[in-house]
Amino acid sequence: MVTRKAALVLGVGPETGLGSALAHRFAASGLQVFIAGRSAAKLDAVAAGITAQGGAAIPVVSDATVEADVIRLLQTVTDNNCELDIAAYNVDSNIPAPLLETDLETFTKLWQQNSLGCFLFGREVIKHMLPQQRGTLIFTGATASLRAKPPFTAFAAAKAGVRALAQGMAREFGPQGIHVIHSIIDGVIDGERARKQFPQFVEAKGSAGLLQAHAIAETYWQLHKQHPSAWTHEIDLRPFKEAF
Amino acid sequence: MVTRKAALVLGVGPETGLGSALAHRFAASGLQVFIAGRSAAKLDAVAAGITAQGGAAIPVVSDATVEADVIRLLQTVTDNNCELDIAAYNVDSNIPAPLLETDLETFTKLWQQNSLGCFLFGREVIKHMLPQQRGTLIFTGATASLRAKPPFTAFAAAKAGVRALAQGMAREFGPQGIHVIHSIIDGVIDGERARKQFPQFVEAKGSAGLLQAHAIAETYWQLHKQHPSAWTHEIDLRPFKEAF
Amino acid sequence: MVTRKAALVLGVGPETGLGSALAHRFAASGLQVFIAGRSAAKLDAVAAGITAQGGAAIPVVSDATVEADVIRLLQTVTDNNCELDIAAYNVDSNIPAPLLETDLETFTKLWQQNSLGCFLFGREVIKHMLPQQRGTLIFTGATASLRAKPPFTAFAAAKAGVRALAQGMAREFGPQGIHVIHSIIDGVIDGERARKQFPQFVEAKGSAGLLQAHAIAETYWQLHKQHPSAWTHEIDLRPFKEAF
Amino acid sequence: MVTRKAALVLGVGPETGLGSALAHRFAASGLQVFIAGRSAAKLDAVAAGITAQGGAAIPVVSDATVEADVIRLLQTVTDNNCELDIAAYNVDSNIPAPLLETDLETFTKLWQQNSLGCFLFGREVIKHMLPQQRGTLIFTGATASLRAKPPFTAFAAAKAGVRALAQGMAREFGPQGIHVIHSIIDGVIDGERARKQFPQFVEAKGSAGLLQAHAIAETYWQLHKQHPSAWTHEIDLRPFKEAF
Repeated sequence: MVTRKAALVLGVGPETGLGSALAHRFAASGLQVFIAGRSAAKLDAVAAGITAQGGAAIPVVSDATVEADVIRLLQTVTDNNCELDIAAYNVDSNIPAPLLETDLETFTKLWQQNSLGCFLFGREVIKHMLPQQRGTLIFTGATASLRAKPPFTAFAAAKAGVRALAQGMAREFGPQGIHVIHSIIDGVIDGERARKQFPQFVEAKGSAGLLQAHAIAETYWQLHKQHPSAWTHEIDLRPFKEAF
Repeated sequence: MVTRKAALVLGVGPETGLGSALAHRFAASGLQVFIAGRSAAKLDAVAAGITAQGGAAIPVVSDATVEADVIRLLQTVTDNNCELDIAAYNVDSNIPAPLLETDLETFTKLWQQNSLGCFLFGREVIKHMLPQQRGTLIFTGATASLRAKPPFTAFAAAKAGVRALAQGMAREFGPQGIHVIHSIIDGVIDGERARKQFPQFVEAKGSAGLLQAHAIAETYWQLHKQHPSAWTHEIDLRPFKEAF
Repeated sequence: MVTRKAALVLGVGPETGLGSALAHRFAASGLQVFIAGRSAAKLDAVAAGITAQGGAAIPVVSDATVEADVIRLLQTVTDNNCELDIAAYNVDSNIPAPLLETDLETFTKLWQQNSLGCFLFGREVIKHMLPQQRGTLIFTGATASLRAKPPFTAFAAAKAGVRALAQGMAREFGPQGIHVIHSIIDGVIDGERARKQFPQFVEAKGSAGLLQAHAIAETYWQLHKQHPSAWTHEIDLRPFKEAF
Repeated sequence: MVTRKAALVLGVGPETGLGSALAHRFAASGLQVFIAGRSAAKLDAVAAGITAQGGAAIPVVSDATVEADVIRLLQTVTDNNCELDIAAYNVDSNIPAPLLETDLETFTKLWQQNSLGCFLFGREVIKHMLPQQRGTLIFTGATASLRAKPPFTAFAAAKAGVRALAQGMAREFGPQGIHVIHSIIDGVIDGERARKQFPQFVEAKGSAGLLQAHAIAETYWQLHKQHPSAWTHEIDLRPFKEAF
């Protein structure tokens, strides 16, 4: 029985989002794609879109913050006789709040969806990839991964954790063939979510001021294709008009 | 009834530790000192030492990771008719582990004792200090706050969160008179803990290769004394022989 | 008369070097390539190699540290009725020395070949590209761009200047369509130069421990192809076995 | 014949400037102070002020960018039978300019006054201090040392060089007892120069928005007093109201 090469994206939501764009890009290159997220309806919509374009997508409802879910997600990949070439952690949750109005629940939730999920996903993906001695593992970060500014202090603490995890994993497993990358998205990704959450911001920026999800996906794919003699471990991505 | 000026140190353990040295330094400058930690016996020993040198120390058994404890700790300061000039978060827990052997419990505990405790302490101290429009709040970090290396990846994720929190707090509350500082301790502090945990390391370094707790405490105090026209928000501290 | 699309590489030496690999990669994509450096013989050899593979290369003897040379170099591009799609500054000179043995001449030379040349090249390339409102300008940096360690202190000072220049140019001209990138090469590039300068290092690392010039060139090309909604301004590249 | 303990400040200009404040602070602690700069008149005024307050100051006209001057400056210290406890490089020159309007002369001058002078001063001071196996060497940097933004790109390239030099010197000579510090001044220092160069900025900020030279000097002094088991190698200083 032949093992198929596969990709895994955790954090797939709306069809216009980055998770969906990554899944489309990986499927377009011929990989069997596993897409995971909390909404079955959204996963099904993305899977249908991939199928319509000749790709192969398997949706897996999973909560990145629940250890058993993440373990089961990787088991699903194995059970389908697949080996991961690339895996992307794309869960994002940003809840702006002044520090004195940040409650324990919010602080904890931000940590769970960013740092904790990143840890669980990274650990399980690496367990899966180590025997094959190859694979790319990419984490989507943000400007806040580098810098904390109000009202994003709690978010920044969670994202800084993601960056540290990616860096530590890169150092520990790079020499064993696992390419771990931290990607700093500096700006807002065009799509349904941005238009809902920040309509005025989107209006003010114009489409040239927003990141296109397909463009990010293309860079992730090129990073995956890098020759092991010249690997990138951290990359920044921003619209050409973005002040930084 | 006159309000007394006070200092608060959360994370006071052995008499030879940094928490104790900070409390001694603050008491020596005439402040009423509140010392907090999980061990009543250790707090009592430190308090007795401070009293013996003519200082005033009130021990408060508290767990930095429990919200109610931290709220109660600040309430104790207020109930004693005290106003904080300076508060230091000095809780530290480092559990080295290869990533694949890091379990959910360890990862969570490291986050709680570093990031979560830092958030709770910072938020409550700032609530206390804001009405007086002044006060120094200092967080003890580590080299891992800046850089993740195995087997310290989970620890680094937690410490990176501390750094982000300190930075975000500094930006949000500096203009209101609260001086927030992140201190990067690059090396091992001489004392009982180091001699127990890393006896060979301590032996190899010799005393000139370890940080002296009283020396760190002196720098914290001088940072507290800085004129508001020239505040420091991040500082590194390491033995002169330390490679960096 | 039709304008041809072109590429320019300043700092082309041995056929096995990065300058040569960049020129080959750009020529392979159909661009007219201008290659510049101090040795006519080396330039001719690289040009011959490109021609042999069906590409088009024009050698221009130039010294990156001489303003008139750099101005004339860009004039040559224009005189050949070419427009630059991409330009790479690849001059490198590393002279290790303990600080007390670093003389004024060495310190100045390192600055000239790194910072000054980078400034002159960047300024002239941007003047060339601005009217067309597009183009990629990439600077090759090193680990020392981020960190100074003896015996590379003077080199690091020069390379830190390159990084600052790239960053300032990216911020000033990105919104006008010029994509400026700083590339951090963390390790030694395989080739004639390394085998001459550091024969024992090369032996110890083995080929898997060295960067392959063609692999770096491929990444530079992919960065050039990035969609303007998601541009990278700094990237690190190192062998998968490299400790970092 | 008894050797006197001394301090040296290179970059002393107006009496309201940082160079003058440093000299005053060092003199107040009992050190024989050498003050160096290009204007004899300004040096004399500062020296007179120090003498008036009971201190001892020797003015030495020197150009930080001229190797012979710097060598002679240190020789003057030795000739006066003095040993340096502390030396500060405080030369600063900032010439804002859009990149395309930055000429070779300006670019070179910025490098000379920042990087080159820093190199020459650091090298000669270290030669002086090494035999005594102790001494503090502090370099005044700026926000631009960390980040390049137009119209300060050329300035940032020069200041990034200063930071690299300080870091490399700290690593090379720290273990031999020389305490090298890079100080990041994030903001504008109150005084004659600011009021001349940026009158509107000074007006808008108000005195609470500017750094007070005496406050910076106090922190430099405290860094000098640090115990060698806990040395700081980089520090940031900004007004409490400064956004960062």
